[in-house]
Amino acid sequence: MRNDLKTMGYLGPAGTFSHCAASIYKKKHPVHLKPSPAFTILVDAVAKKEIDIAIVPVENSIEGAVGIVLDLLSDHATINIIAELLLPVTHRLLVSPGRSLKEITRVISHPQAIGQCRCWLTQHLPQADIIETASTALAASTIAQSKEPWAAIGTAVSENLYNLHCLAQNINDYANNTTRFLIIATETVPVCNNYAYKTSIEFTLLHQPGALYKVLGEFSQRDINLTRIESRPTKTELGRYRFFIDFTGHQDEQPVSKLLSILKQQVRSLRVLGSYPAGD
Amino acid sequence: MRNDLKTMGYLGPAGTFSHCAASIYKKKHPVHLKPSPAFTILVDAVAKKEIDIAIVPVENSIEGAVGIVLDLLSDHATINIIAELLLPVTHRLLVSPGRSLKEITRVISHPQAIGQCRCWLTQHLPQADIIETASTALAASTIAQSKEPWAAIGTAVSENLYNLHCLAQNINDYANNTTRFLIIATETVPVCNNYAYKTSIEFTLLHQPGALYKVLGEFSQRDINLTRIESRPTKTELGRYRFFIDFTGHQDEQPVSKLLSILKQQVRSLRVLGSYPAGD
Repeated sequence: MRNDLKTMGYLGPAGTFSHCAASIYKKKHPVHLKPSPAFTILVDAVAKKEIDIAIVPVENSIEGAVGIVLDLLSDHATINIIAELLLPVTHRLLVSPGRSLKEITRVISHPQAIGQCRCWLTQHLPQADIIETASTALAASTIAQSKEPWAAIGTAVSENLYNLHCLAQNINDYANNTTRFLIIATETVPVCNNYAYKTSIEFTLLHQPGALYKVLGEFSQRDINLTRIESRPTKTELGRYRFFIDFTGHQDEQPVSKLLSILKQQVRSLRVLGSYPAGD
Repeated sequence: MRNDLKTMGYLGPAGTFSHCAASIYKKKHPVHLKPSPAFTILVDAVAKKEIDIAIVPVENSIEGAVGIVLDLLSDHATINIIAELLLPVTHRLLVSPGRSLKEITRVISHPQAIGQCRCWLTQHLPQADIIETASTALAASTIAQSKEPWAAIGTAVSENLYNLHCLAQNINDYANNTTRFLIIATETVPVCNNYAYKTSIEFTLLHQPGALYKVLGEFSQRDINLTRIESRPTKTELGRYRFFIDFTGHQDEQPVSKLLSILKQQVRSLRVLGSYPAGD
């Protein structure tokens, strides 16, 4: 470990999809990787500058938004998004060497991984119990330590790391399974002409009819392309939402900087989560 | 069980929040209750008319949308929403009689319940492992059968059902914790003058700039009040979304029926999930 390297936290243990994403990021931007046991601890560590940056999943093309990550971004006013990374997701059925499909009595994995392989499991392992774990890597390490006829849904990284055998590859029900990760820090990203940028904001609306329509109108008038809109509860009462919008452009350039100054007058609260180079 | 009673399915086993919601519904609308082990099986059973109706949670004021339920509504074209029910949620820490707080080494419950008690757990049980289960009721029944110094987060119904002791009430981090349930069937609800109605739709947009803005404009022009907007992935590729909107009014009355006929020409696909009396 070089001392001048930044430290990047990820949801561990080793072998998770977050670890895969962090390893890909590391190829272009040398960093020292550090696992964290939970998203809350990970994001707190960035806010307190105990680590420099962190990589967190924010949405999956099958399962949708990762609610806790949106909530944590919302709760930490000093944190900015500095990059995004798209990771194709393929799931594997992992067992201890020597086990066969028909012996399996239990399949364990993270709820999102289970959700993404639901049809395959129903078809090929109708007899097996399905048990949720905190991560796909934890599921793999459990299998490695257990003598029971169980299987884990996990990554190729976990397969190698825990010396497991792969009974079936690509068991996800949908082929186009991609997870979008955000890289977060307490810094911001200045404009550089070489990149196409995206900006992420979160806001709450005034309690007025057509409030969301008016906000979207400001984007439409300036031909700013929305790439995503997500709502999350404000946690005050049912029926009150916080919106997350991603769109093209950088907050320090027109037309986005003008848009943001107009929006501030139209909403109850607004925070720019960051402007960052759009991922491939 | 009277033979003329409708059968209402819910996510079991007995003692879940779904069971609580079903029991409240039953007080006004006599039904025979039947537990189901999974949302997929439950919604399928309604579509295949194996049961008459089902009650499913669709959003919580803290945790947000229940993604799998939205996806299942979307996948079953014959299913309609016929009613909604709001259930205040309070969580309890349940143990075998005789156990004290300082002995607890592990807390087990459904991931949503754990998420809703995160601060309380960090403050009062920092030493305990947190393990996820498929339902709060399963967690309670596990505690009842175990000799380990473990606790479950669960309901008052589970406490009574499994003869457990409550170590702490209202351990949820936010006071205004409410879950919204939908009652679904293959029938639709005709207009009756005694009720204020809500309508739920799902749609996908044409791939055009400002497409969502135009859709919201049709609501705004007719002073139709949006009560909720939610996006879910279409599962084809990252960045393609399906929208769920709830709003006031009935599909068989103006201005909603006109709105729907206009919207059909502006979107890629549109389905009315149902018009139903607004919950209290």
